[in-house]
Amino acid sequence: DIDDERLWDSLMAMAEIGPTAGGGSCRLALTDEDDAGRRLLLEWCEALGCRWRLDPIGNLFIRREGRRNDLPPVAMGSHLDTQPLGGRFDGILGVLGGLEVLRTLADAGVVTERPLELVVWTNEEGSRFAPAMVASGTYAGVFKLDDTLAIADSAGVTMGQELERLNYRAELEVGEPGLDSYFELHIEQGPVLEECEEAIGVVSGVQGMRWFDLTIKGQNSHAGPTPMAYRHDALAAAARLIDRLYAHALEDSSGATRVTFGQLDISSASRNVVPGELCLSVDLRHGDEAQLDALQQRFEQEVVSIEEAFGVSTQCQRIWASPVVSFDDACIDAVEAAARQRQLPHRRMMSGAGHDAVYVARVAPTAMIFVPCRDGISHNEAEYSSPEQCGQGTQVLCDAVIAHANR
Amino acid sequence: DIDDERLWDSLMAMAEIGPTAGGGSCRLALTDEDDAGRRLLLEWCEALGCRWRLDPIGNLFIRREGRRNDLPPVAMGSHLDTQPLGGRFDGILGVLGGLEVLRTLADAGVVTERPLELVVWTNEEGSRFAPAMVASGTYAGVFKLDDTLAIADSAGVTMGQELERLNYRAELEVGEPGLDSYFELHIEQGPVLEECEEAIGVVSGVQGMRWFDLTIKGQNSHAGPTPMAYRHDALAAAARLIDRLYAHALEDSSGATRVTFGQLDISSASRNVVPGELCLSVDLRHGDEAQLDALQQRFEQEVVSIEEAFGVSTQCQRIWASPVVSFDDACIDAVEAAARQRQLPHRRMMSGAGHDAVYVARVAPTAMIFVPCRDGISHNEAEYSSPEQCGQGTQVLCDAVIAHANR
Ligand SMILES: NC(=O)NCCC(=O)O
Ligand SMILES: NC(=O)NCCC(=O)O
Repeated sequence: DIDDERLWDSLMAMAEIGPTAGGGSCRLALTDEDDAGRRLLLEWCEALGCRWRLDPIGNLFIRREGRRNDLPPVAMGSHLDTQPLGGRFDGILGVLGGLEVLRTLADAGVVTERPLELVVWTNEEGSRFAPAMVASGTYAGVFKLDDTLAIADSAGVTMGQELERLNYRAELEVGEPGLDSYFELHIEQGPVLEECEEAIGVVSGVQGMRWFDLTIKGQNSHAGPTPMAYRHDALAAAARLIDRLYAHALEDSSGATRVTFGQLDISSASRNVVPGELCLSVDLRHGDEAQLDALQQRFEQEVVSIEEAFGVSTQCQRIWASPVVSFDDACIDAVEAAARQRQLPHRRMMSGAGHDAVYVARVAPTAMIFVPCRDGISHNEAEYSSPEQCGQGTQVLCDAVIAHANR
Repeated sequence: DIDDERLWDSLMAMAEIGPTAGGGSCRLALTDEDDAGRRLLLEWCEALGCRWRLDPIGNLFIRREGRRNDLPPVAMGSHLDTQPLGGRFDGILGVLGGLEVLRTLADAGVVTERPLELVVWTNEEGSRFAPAMVASGTYAGVFKLDDTLAIADSAGVTMGQELERLNYRAELEVGEPGLDSYFELHIEQGPVLEECEEAIGVVSGVQGMRWFDLTIKGQNSHAGPTPMAYRHDALAAAARLIDRLYAHALEDSSGATRVTFGQLDISSASRNVVPGELCLSVDLRHGDEAQLDALQQRFEQEVVSIEEAFGVSTQCQRIWASPVVSFDDACIDAVEAAARQRQLPHRRMMSGAGHDAVYVARVAPTAMIFVPCRDGISHNEAEYSSPEQCGQGTQVLCDAVIAHANR
């Protein structure tokens, strides 16, 4: 059995690297803090006799040999980078849960049939280098290595330059090592498990996501002398769109339809000027691809309808589309069996957020394990899962990985 | 009769002081550009034999003597300061129209019964020093001199410091000189006259205005894993409010109800985060004080209703309230009579925007004259009224002022 307390101690030790005033962590991808986090992990893993290798995009593969080292490894992992005001669990739990599995096996003197691989994916958050999950995506062949190395942060520094500066030398080619299977433990980042008082989410897949940048152009005019009937108010048009689409999503009693408008920027905004132009970000998600198509269609209809109603013009750019992912049945079953055997209340669920598992699933059988997090809050210094909750998820990870490695 | 071409030449000469790339002007209040604009005007006025004085807030009074200089003067004027990307007419037309009146009288060798006073009010725009119309408001006793002198721009420089730096020495006390009456010529800043193909707006008053800062607090959460039913989306709440209040204003077929949301700022906005907090500016206007009360009540009801519907909390601060202003009947009649005699198509109308006349009307009989501006566009480098339109307004100003000065 895994050791809750040891796991918690390693989580709290990692949180001390790049600590923030509000009790969270800041380890932006490929900064000195991110590097220090990886070094701490490697210190711990080297003490267990593991060896490690890097691939050309800085993904870190830490190996524990099995009895049949000719077979591809069963992998666990997640990421150590955080948001600028990030929490102590998002990504980190998946990595340090994996470490705890390795320690538990070492303590028990158990050697698995297949080798194990603990993976730290580079730049999952996408906060310093956009988009998110780009290094696991490169590993899986979704993005080209050269393109990924050329991605620059807001200061113009590229991922390639930072890998060079940190002296990360690749021993592996892109896509190496091939994996037998991949298990990622993560906090839910939503409220469902907590509300349902369940300990484990058996994650069967990841919902589809589509991102749009919508520009609405009306006409600036003076707030006082311009009668309502003469206005081309870009914000009023956006408000109608947001209200309609939000209401449409709420109507779906299954809760599967998700619509978010995270950013709204009015050009040259002024208190007494009717907004003439704005840019709105649109995030549409659904666990069913056909339903997601329908949702996008509904969105496009509402855009046409505000053009007519408000006399505005629009430009819409789809900047990202991540299809619905279904994880591997055998991996899902392994997670579910572990939760059942440990008598932990659990439910099958889709992940609402993107994770490295989304891209790894394209090249290896994959599943995820969720644990509850307080109030569903994530990407926030206040992010919290209890030692017990973290431990339960790690126990399920451990059981599923051992079962899979010995099958 | 006034000289359209001479008026146009002086407008274009003034526009050369602080010219902007897009064909507008930038003369922020009490900058060197603003000062240069005043100097150009004074050069022109001194050539006419006028003398001038300043009051303690930099308001500039340029006097043309009459036959009865023991009587208070009939005044004309407006402002020379502009928005950062301002036009060539907003304020400037009222001042240079007044100059053209003085020149026309000089050419004709006419001396009026009462003296005339051409006034340049300081900092009407409120763009460098907030609020707007603060110097005419100080003249009228609405703001205290010390408070006004202490108003700082975004760099921390106060109006008092700038008056000192520019060496503006007051010969007048606050509120001096008392005025017999005041006529302000201005571009409409809205589309009504242009749409109705009318040359002159006989401005009977100014609508009431109320400004609010509304903060909406919900909860940040992840766009993906958070089901709609669990959200406290501050932007969705704001959108409902905007949509409802905008529709309510549109329902008023008289066109008198005006509702504008000019600024909307989401705290720590991110594409895949449900907005947890935002600040919205609200500008409510109506020409009838009781209707404006009702509009504010409706706004407050809608705020309560979004609190309930979206599970958000709100804080609302009323930061400015300018009551409905009715101008003086005799002054309005003088403007109307002049438009009628010149056979210029005209209509009585309320001003939708605030002007210095709002505060002057508290201490002297006042009226305003509007001329059309292209597409109703103002606070914009593209602001435009034709030489003929400017000339027609100035002719009406001239006739009304002479009639009043000789009555
Ligand atoms: N876990 C996470 O926040 N991934 C970023 C992509 C998304 O918005 O779901
Ligand atoms: N003329 C003008 O823009 N005044 C500022 C006050 C207002 O918003 O009406």
